[in-house]
Amino acid sequence: MTAFADRLDRAVTLTKTPVLVGLDPRLASIPEKLVPTGAEADPSLAADVFKRFCRGVIDVVAPLVPAVKPQAAFFERIGPEGMFALAEVIRYAQSMGLLVIFDGKRNDIGSTATAYAQGILGREESAWRADAVTVSPYLGDDSLDPFIDVADERDAGVFVLVKTSNPGGGMLQDLMTDEGPVYRHVARYVERMAQRTAGDCGYGAVGAVVGATYPEQLTELRTVMPHTWFLVPGYGSQGGTAADVAAAFDDEGKGAIVNNSRGIIFAHAAQPYASKFGADRWQEAIEAATRDMIAQLRDETPAGKLVI
Amino acid sequence: MTAFADRLDRAVTLTKTPVLVGLDPRLASIPEKLVPTGAEADPSLAADVFKRFCRGVIDVVAPLVPAVKPQAAFFERIGPEGMFALAEVIRYAQSMGLLVIFDGKRNDIGSTATAYAQGILGREESAWRADAVTVSPYLGDDSLDPFIDVADERDAGVFVLVKTSNPGGGMLQDLMTDEGPVYRHVARYVERMAQRTAGDCGYGAVGAVVGATYPEQLTELRTVMPHTWFLVPGYGSQGGTAADVAAAFDDEGKGAIVNNSRGIIFAHAAQPYASKFGADRWQEAIEAATRDMIAQLRDETPAGKLVI
Repeated sequence: MTAFADRLDRAVTLTKTPVLVGLDPRLASIPEKLVPTGAEADPSLAADVFKRFCRGVIDVVAPLVPAVKPQAAFFERIGPEGMFALAEVIRYAQSMGLLVIFDGKRNDIGSTATAYAQGILGREESAWRADAVTVSPYLGDDSLDPFIDVADERDAGVFVLVKTSNPGGGMLQDLMTDEGPVYRHVARYVERMAQRTAGDCGYGAVGAVVGATYPEQLTELRTVMPHTWFLVPGYGSQGGTAADVAAAFDDEGKGAIVNNSRGIIFAHAAQPYASKFGADRWQEAIEAATRDMIAQLRDETPAGKLVI
Repeated sequence: MTAFADRLDRAVTLTKTPVLVGLDPRLASIPEKLVPTGAEADPSLAADVFKRFCRGVIDVVAPLVPAVKPQAAFFERIGPEGMFALAEVIRYAQSMGLLVIFDGKRNDIGSTATAYAQGILGREESAWRADAVTVSPYLGDDSLDPFIDVADERDAGVFVLVKTSNPGGGMLQDLMTDEGPVYRHVARYVERMAQRTAGDCGYGAVGAVVGATYPEQLTELRTVMPHTWFLVPGYGSQGGTAADVAAAFDDEGKGAIVNNSRGIIFAHAAQPYASKFGADRWQEAIEAATRDMIAQLRDETPAGKLVI
């Protein structure tokens, strides 16, 4: 199998967009007609709703975007039945040609980190079959290296949290040391690992999560991490705009994927899509929201170069 | 239900020991007679082995210790079938009178963190029914508060990574700022939250993970966090001794639980238990290793006060 960085590069090139669709299923937000009475209290019913809804999202976005990012928390919330649904959603997305980033922010040390990595990463070798996983760096390099080793062996990817999109992220990430803020230490490590695992496209198997809501740091971090794919959360609902994420891209419009979860999958409940489509035409709302985001990034960021 | 901190206090008082048994099932380390041919390639078989093995461990340790800590990574490694096994192991442990700490080192922001917390925490309200969960703090306070809020509502607990037992933990945790190392910033936050959620025993629903392998920092952190339960990993296989963990306890021998995973559950494969019991008598090896650790902590730490 081709290295993850190159598969992502190819998927972005083919779809001509860096839009990443986040799959965050929540019963309270899914169109009511998909949710039978009692689903909240019945994990099997809830898991069925999640599968049906996510398949419906995937059917719409698969021809338009390179990748999806299921959020493990929402599946895990309903218990083991939810985890079966997550596995099915991952397979379905891949069968439709999408790359899948398992958003689990997993982290542990040594052989425990290896267990997570072996379970999650790799289409052929792992139980979950994800193409990439998000990980948290608080435990340090001997917690990240096992993920990177497994990813490298299996042509999968790892996205390390560097500078996150939430207001509280600064509590630790912005603490100032003699050599700059904490997030910059993580960034330097990630860039070294990206260089070590670089594919033909010039980017590595190790990427960074850098929020859309801190455009200055996004600009700084693009310079610190020239070989690192960025996964950019915080677009849309969290306040990040196309202008805010422009600095995430290289001159060719590559090097970053920009996530939108609620803004796309629950577009039927937000304006302007709610009035135009409403819950009955939820898939049309998703398509319109996805196309709008693709256009915004095309028109206002270097990702426009992908179209030429 | 009684607050988690008080339930933990009571369980430690009744068993007269702070030993926490880590459930880290791995096919390669489980006694061969429990592992049918082909289990590595068959998630359902592997899940059955995990359930049988963990029940066997629980049967032995339930009369001896206050709590167990299943490591989610090993269950997740085998896929959704493993997650069903994890749920069953949690219920079985509780039915045997044990408290259960879900070691998942979960973390995310806002409503996603809430989804993890709602799914994992609380015997009555959640899918996984854990009494407590471990969480990672890199995302900051707005990633931890949702866990703490749910824990507080449901009489459950949260253990935040502060100073971990692995050599690489220092990469971020020891970075020096004007107000001390990064881990001390986390410690101050955790102590505030522990105070806010303090139960009758004086300790709070929010605890800290502080490794046995850094006794100096353990001493320092006990002072910084007087209302915080410590979950101390790194005893045994990772090199921490009874003397190393002595500083984790308060004067009455309370305030800390000390984890041992491999050193107990795979005692049949390590000396002196391997020669004496071997794989055929693996449960006797577990009992001997547990009793030895209980004795070491009783004889060499303030936990000895629990026995009086």
